[in-house]
Amino acid sequence: MSDHRENPWRAVATRPVYDNPWIRVRQDEVIRPDGLPGIYGVVEFKNRAVGVLPVEDDGSIWLVGQHRYPLDAYSWEMPEGGCPPEESPDEAVLRELKEETGMTCDRLELVARCHLSNSVSDEEAFIYRASGLTHGPSDPEGTERLEVRRVPWAEAWRMLKDGEITDAMSVVAILHEAVRRLEG
Amino acid sequence: MSDHRENPWRAVATRPVYDNPWIRVRQDEVIRPDGLPGIYGVVEFKNRAVGVLPVEDDGSIWLVGQHRYPLDAYSWEMPEGGCPPEESPDEAVLRELKEETGMTCDRLELVARCHLSNSVSDEEAFIYRASGLTHGPSDPEGTERLEVRRVPWAEAWRMLKDGEITDAMSVVAILHEAVRRLEG
Repeated sequence: MSDHRENPWRAVATRPVYDNPWIRVRQDEVIRPDGLPGIYGVVEFKNRAVGVLPVEDDGSIWLVGQHRYPLDAYSWEMPEGGCPPEESPDEAVLRELKEETGMTCDRLELVARCHLSNSVSDEEAFIYRASGLTHGPSDPEGTERLEVRRVPWAEAWRMLKDGEITDAMSVVAILHEAVRRLEG
Repeated sequence: MSDHRENPWRAVATRPVYDNPWIRVRQDEVIRPDGLPGIYGVVEFKNRAVGVLPVEDDGSIWLVGQHRYPLDAYSWEMPEGGCPPEESPDEAVLRELKEETGMTCDRLELVARCHLSNSVSDEEAFIYRASGLTHGPSDPEGTERLEVRRVPWAEAWRMLKDGEITDAMSVVAILHEAVRRLEG
């Protein structure tokens, strides 16, 4: 690894500024890459994010609609949730799929791992595709009020292109699905 | 809009818990969708995120490499930055492109708007494609130590598939480019 790949930031002090069951925020005093002093506020996530795009044999997908509190807006997304440290992402995403939609699946495929906002947070997302779907009763958490909707592929693609789906994890999953369809 | 589309969350109190030049964190006391009391920690972003995938006529793209402090890891990404409230995303992204790579472009196209982490933050990203590139001197900020690299399309696609590019905005931009190429 050459010199310029070394971490050009140096932390000289750190203090916690906020903590709740989901995130921890700290402020570091740093020496920046140009040698000047500065600060860096970092949002640490206690859970990883997991999400799964359920795909039917006819190509239609399942979306869940919910009000997203930080945006104060309604959002159509794939089933998503948090994966605590003691759970594997595979287990967590199957649990979320079942809770939110009642579905189980024969095939689960990891299509992407992303860092969602790496200038401020360490949040990592595991993005899956599920197929071979079997339908059963759902069991959403108390913090969720969800609509569940089967969407034909052409309509899902239109929603993406028209900006009606803005959740980054869902956008990545649907774009991966588009590539998969185009590659045949 | 039917009843179930109403905001099922109710904020009963709010207090600021952290503030720096880039983010503000608040904690709200809320009544959750199931009627029980709870808390919600929200990370508000003072800037929007902007990023642009520079695409050459031969299909190769330009990536910048940098150490991402919150991850403590090196990351290959498209040129990205922050867009303050008084700047338009188009202006901001052209400024970042010039600062980080020295490039200007004949054509700039908005390919996606995403919310990067909508369970915790209100961060919105504007994702662009630039073509008709002209090269000049770069002028990175003091907080940036960057490598700039021209990557043939096949290599960029391999990096994405192999998980060597994990920044969510860059993943969205490269997947959009893949769809564009496959659609011809």
